[in-house]
Amino acid sequence: MNPNDTTPFTLVLFGAAGDLARRRLVPSLYALWCDGALPEHWQLLGVSRSALTSDEWRAELADALEGEVADDFLARVGYVSADATDPQALGSLRERLEGQRCIFYLATRADLYAGITRALEEAGLISGQSRMVLEKPIGLDYASAEAIETSVRGCFDERQIFRIDHYLGKETVQNLLVLRFANSIFESQWNHRYIDHIQITIAESGSVAGRGAFYDEVGALRDMVQNHLLQLLCMTAMEPPNTLDADAVRDEKVKVLRALRPMEITTIAEEVVRGQYTAGANGEAGYTEDAGVRDSATETFVAMRVAIDNWRWAGVPFYLRTGKRLPERTCEIVVHFRPVPHSIFPQQRASMANRLVFRLQPDEGIQLSFSEKRPGAAMDIRMSELSLNPQTLRRERAPDAYERLLSDVIQDNQTLFVRHDELMAAWDWVDPILQNWRDSGVRPEPYRAGTWGPSAATMLLARDGRLWDERETDDAPDG
Amino acid sequence: MNPNDTTPFTLVLFGAAGDLARRRLVPSLYALWCDGALPEHWQLLGVSRSALTSDEWRAELADALEGEVADDFLARVGYVSADATDPQALGSLRERLEGQRCIFYLATRADLYAGITRALEEAGLISGQSRMVLEKPIGLDYASAEAIETSVRGCFDERQIFRIDHYLGKETVQNLLVLRFANSIFESQWNHRYIDHIQITIAESGSVAGRGAFYDEVGALRDMVQNHLLQLLCMTAMEPPNTLDADAVRDEKVKVLRALRPMEITTIAEEVVRGQYTAGANGEAGYTEDAGVRDSATETFVAMRVAIDNWRWAGVPFYLRTGKRLPERTCEIVVHFRPVPHSIFPQQRASMANRLVFRLQPDEGIQLSFSEKRPGAAMDIRMSELSLNPQTLRRERAPDAYERLLSDVIQDNQTLFVRHDELMAAWDWVDPILQNWRDSGVRPEPYRAGTWGPSAATMLLARDGRLWDERETDDAPDG
Repeated sequence: MNPNDTTPFTLVLFGAAGDLARRRLVPSLYALWCDGALPEHWQLLGVSRSALTSDEWRAELADALEGEVADDFLARVGYVSADATDPQALGSLRERLEGQRCIFYLATRADLYAGITRALEEAGLISGQSRMVLEKPIGLDYASAEAIETSVRGCFDERQIFRIDHYLGKETVQNLLVLRFANSIFESQWNHRYIDHIQITIAESGSVAGRGAFYDEVGALRDMVQNHLLQLLCMTAMEPPNTLDADAVRDEKVKVLRALRPMEITTIAEEVVRGQYTAGANGEAGYTEDAGVRDSATETFVAMRVAIDNWRWAGVPFYLRTGKRLPERTCEIVVHFRPVPHSIFPQQRASMANRLVFRLQPDEGIQLSFSEKRPGAAMDIRMSELSLNPQTLRRERAPDAYERLLSDVIQDNQTLFVRHDELMAAWDWVDPILQNWRDSGVRPEPYRAGTWGPSAATMLLARDGRLWDERETDDAPDG
Repeated sequence: MNPNDTTPFTLVLFGAAGDLARRRLVPSLYALWCDGALPEHWQLLGVSRSALTSDEWRAELADALEGEVADDFLARVGYVSADATDPQALGSLRERLEGQRCIFYLATRADLYAGITRALEEAGLISGQSRMVLEKPIGLDYASAEAIETSVRGCFDERQIFRIDHYLGKETVQNLLVLRFANSIFESQWNHRYIDHIQITIAESGSVAGRGAFYDEVGALRDMVQNHLLQLLCMTAMEPPNTLDADAVRDEKVKVLRALRPMEITTIAEEVVRGQYTAGANGEAGYTEDAGVRDSATETFVAMRVAIDNWRWAGVPFYLRTGKRLPERTCEIVVHFRPVPHSIFPQQRASMANRLVFRLQPDEGIQLSFSEKRPGAAMDIRMSELSLNPQTLRRERAPDAYERLLSDVIQDNQTLFVRHDELMAAWDWVDPILQNWRDSGVRPEPYRAGTWGPSAATMLLARDGRLWDERETDDAPDG
């Protein structure tokens, strides 16, 4: 990026005293600054109800940032203690923000988005230059999302709104687009004729401890599936866009969401598994204890089989799963190609079909599994796992997801942000599942902390004759 | 291999005092022996006109083999000085070979094959257990090949005859079969819809010095194209065989040879380039000096565009080339996939199409070229070259081509040997080119030693809008 390409900006960070701001957003801004990736003139203004002075906040940030923090950076940082939903309180900022290109970043609870927008409007802080950045989850269902969206879109044009899904900022997700659309050997196989099925897993080993009150209202379907898992599914399944322009890419993503086979009351019990972790074998607490609730029907695990009703994906199941307190923290998209139609090698088994793995967590990378000849006199074959970007990962630093997305906001590039119609299409698809769970009174199935979820998740694939991918253990041959 | 699987054998090596025997065959036998890959009982009997005793030959071999040579090995080695085309002389071996499983290995000039076969027959040395191994080139044209074949096939069944093409013994050539037929992602693209063209190069940096008399009668078309290049083309282009059985594989190979578009008088001048090296810029001698001839119309370089007339390869040119005194010693099969039909990445050029390179010389290996994202904030792409078998090459020793083939002869596996109909189909296709050159009196085009052949070879591809592959220089980024 050429810093001269961008005009000065003021980042107004709401929820400045919160965890996300301190742990992710300010460090990302700092990294961009250290890289010389910011324009010459900019400032950061933190807003929050916490009674802090600018100096106190700066001291907090300096503690949170690693190493010796440059005074030049902190000199551009200010703080205002205010109720951001109060137009009066925001009015005091008018003079300070007059004529600036303001980026309003809402790192607050989503139920404040409408109120903050209204207050910004009433305080006269919104101009055509303004940008609005929203963190997930936007709403708790279709209706609440629509209410927030109506408020925000009443004051900002779609081109001014940046809905963050930080999974889209990951280098490997963007490399997935390059691998697909810049390589004829991959994209020519990217359909039901060559692909058997696709698995997308976001597994967390951590518990909900510390954010139980928030989580108990939300659950895994809203927290992970509606946004991250469906976004990864869109990037994997989308048709080639005409260009890399923001709307060309998002037009294709929304088409995928609209092609998701609707979940109906009769099929939800078959296609969706819902779990809640209980105490683990090694003394780990169960969900209710972690969340500090007496009893709860909130799911901490979801697995589902999803069908995409279009020409490309007819008959190809997408298996999604996510959960808390699983055996490890990992995020992978695994494309399983069909086995060879006729094998001439005695050692070949169906499990030796080609696979392409896009790993997003804990490390990033792309791996291809294929069969090769075992060196020697016989025609023996074996599977080999090959990293497609070993040099990249070793030698070059890729920007963190938040750095990438913050930089895109500053440069006004919406490609990696969720558009209104995408958001609503995702809620539209998820809503019947939420409703069914509520109406039927079905409770999540228990699973022990430290396991891969309830046995029904295994059955979901087993009845199709398949297994979930498990990561290779470290001592496996790396082939 | 389990040594108990094979019965004892006696290897009768004709041409035992020659270069091939000393440099390749006996060392390969020794390597198999060291690996424990030979049965418990075996012996080697060298036959040649050279007046040597067994002790003298053993001493020669001990010199040629690397390191300390085990006495146990040399104790199994004997030598007989004889004219192998003389039935009387061979008759003296009858008692010694009685009841043995004899493998007759003809490492002599091809014009002796018929005579040796006749002498073996008359001396009563051939039984149903016998095997006959023939080195290339078998014949100098269709008629002479047919004469040799008629003699040999008069005394041996096809199942007893092993025609060696040592390129087929190379690990990477066999891995090509595995890559194609054990991986749906490769074989599903292995046709005219996804492949733009294929280049096969066998380049030699060496001259003909030392074997000029032989070479001047033969030339590059007979020495390299009729056998090695066409065999590599068959392995690359063949349909999937039903099984890995010798005849199933060779049935498919011969189908390729029969599908080669015939070279006609009118097209040979357009499709085939013929060259002869002249003195180089750094004082290298020209061909006539190296060969010790005053004048010669023998070609030391051939490049050609070959069409395969079947469904799979319609419209996909195969460009073959081979030559002496080229800039480097290299052997590669390069599969060029089509470029993406529509590019959305500004940096993408047609030259960034996917390529799969099978390298046979100087080192063996398989490489995939593909586009990946350059790490960083922009959607920049770049080509990356990736070895598909880095572990294999680093850690495990693959048997040398002659070891592999000798072991296959001992185990009676004909898969990697050329069948009679393959040999004759190859000559049938090559013959019109030889005839045309002879009849037209067209002389080879000169090229300077140390260059990539005459400019007509460049033009052969340039008029199709293509370039010959050049190897990456060592300081190029390895992606």
